[in-house]
Amino acid sequence: MSLLVVGTVAFDAIETPFGKTDKIVGGAATYIGLSASYFAKKINLVSVIGDDFPQEMLQTFGKYHINTEGLQIKKGQKTFFWSGKYHNDMNTRDTLATELNVLGDFDPVLPASYQDCDFLMLGNLMPQVQKKVMDNLKKRPKLIVMDTMNFWMDTAWDALMETLAMVDVLTINDEEARQMAKEHSLVKAAQKILKLGPKFLIIKKGEHGALLFNKDQVFFAPALPLEDVFDPTGAGDTFAGGFIGHLAATKDLSFENLKRAVIYGSAMASFCVEKFGIERLLALSPKEVDERVSEFIDLVQFDIELI
Amino acid sequence: MSLLVVGTVAFDAIETPFGKTDKIVGGAATYIGLSASYFAKKINLVSVIGDDFPQEMLQTFGKYHINTEGLQIKKGQKTFFWSGKYHNDMNTRDTLATELNVLGDFDPVLPASYQDCDFLMLGNLMPQVQKKVMDNLKKRPKLIVMDTMNFWMDTAWDALMETLAMVDVLTINDEEARQMAKEHSLVKAAQKILKLGPKFLIIKKGEHGALLFNKDQVFFAPALPLEDVFDPTGAGDTFAGGFIGHLAATKDLSFENLKRAVIYGSAMASFCVEKFGIERLLALSPKEVDERVSEFIDLVQFDIELI
Repeated sequence: MSLLVVGTVAFDAIETPFGKTDKIVGGAATYIGLSASYFAKKINLVSVIGDDFPQEMLQTFGKYHINTEGLQIKKGQKTFFWSGKYHNDMNTRDTLATELNVLGDFDPVLPASYQDCDFLMLGNLMPQVQKKVMDNLKKRPKLIVMDTMNFWMDTAWDALMETLAMVDVLTINDEEARQMAKEHSLVKAAQKILKLGPKFLIIKKGEHGALLFNKDQVFFAPALPLEDVFDPTGAGDTFAGGFIGHLAATKDLSFENLKRAVIYGSAMASFCVEKFGIERLLALSPKEVDERVSEFIDLVQFDIELI
Repeated sequence: MSLLVVGTVAFDAIETPFGKTDKIVGGAATYIGLSASYFAKKINLVSVIGDDFPQEMLQTFGKYHINTEGLQIKKGQKTFFWSGKYHNDMNTRDTLATELNVLGDFDPVLPASYQDCDFLMLGNLMPQVQKKVMDNLKKRPKLIVMDTMNFWMDTAWDALMETLAMVDVLTINDEEARQMAKEHSLVKAAQKILKLGPKFLIIKKGEHGALLFNKDQVFFAPALPLEDVFDPTGAGDTFAGGFIGHLAATKDLSFENLKRAVIYGSAMASFCVEKFGIERLLALSPKEVDERVSEFIDLVQFDIELI
């Protein structure tokens, strides 16, 4: 009963109003895997890197019980690189550089040991690559969660729709939901998107929290009000990792448990933004995670008895 | 044990992507009073209108047990008029016209019968006028809630600070909180503002909900995800009316009960935006209010047991 995580493992260079980094380790699958590792016992990673990627990070993955058998290392090639600069409001950013490198012709290969997969997290990638992973699994996972972004809506709409029809949960941000559904109201957008295939939709609103929809229900989880958001990079992936990690650990796919998974995802994301890159995710204790979840309970809990 | 509401009673002309209105009845005190009337039994109104204001609306106030003894009617003068046009996102608007008319030299007069006031809601007005109402009360109310806006920060900072120091609860929106505290982080802004006098601060974030702060605690209430926001005019005042109405009805000033009051305020605001102006607030049943509060419970309730 394992969790399969597919996505980028990358270098990021980040600039925020609080400072800037050189090339640091990032990538959707990195954030997803590390976040999920606080919940799920066995995580199998599928990704690709160049031989410029630091060996210590592979050991770190191992320490967080992330299996890297499916992590391809391309000799003589460079790891995917992204560089961005956040504006003062931290809600918007400019991309300064995107160097696809090894990602340009990424062909995901699943080791035989990965076939026993009950939970699949498809990090943001070209939809054709996400689909290929599903096609290559002999047994359909119990739950498939997919992340995507506006870029694929602009450049690979048909492939995106084909892939979307195969998954159980889609996670996107509010502007992407509006773009996908061509509908400003998020409630209406959600119902349109649920008709495209997924049974559940999570709309991530950054500092404004996250909404979980199915056809009949809606649940809202706030973001924790933080003194400072230091670096938002990876927050959405960290959310997704906590979400699917909790589900893989509890094996309960009820709406009630998906709500809990959204809270765990929100708690993990609230840590992620406290420092640059994955720094905070590497230094967490289970006690800190529980305390953070407890803050979420205090934040939204109220007691009204209706007659 | 009554609730005193001070604020504008006005004409509005509103344009949204869904349509436009001629001059309709609006004003902060109108929304506050109508919203509070679903909770508080006795509401005393202090405001000013011209003799162009419709007589039927005065009867409507009476029907909602809003006492208009303190509503001055200026012969031969015109009622305050505001006109605005909302952008497509409904979060921003342009003011097309502001005609102060009777509001230009508004001098609030408190009838003797209003002196027995335990709850005071100061709707958005010139801070000097808000202060004068407090000065003219022989006995300090148990709770004073004050609304204000960026315009007074720009034009009457000192008077605003003097007034703010006298109240218990301030309600402002997120941008105004940032401006008042000169601080982007709402958490830091809240703690700065609480040092200026009020024991509680409510930051209204429109479609993103509302935050309630005291020095040690924070509570978050979401806005209900609605299919359509038809007209946001008056939503903040309707929120304030539900908030103070619930407190006046329950006479419990604990943080737990303030949290409930925020939920009732949010529920009332969610009705307000469903139609133009006060239309929806005039056609509510207590059963509908309870059902709406029940939707808020469903929206945020989750059950996590931490060991």
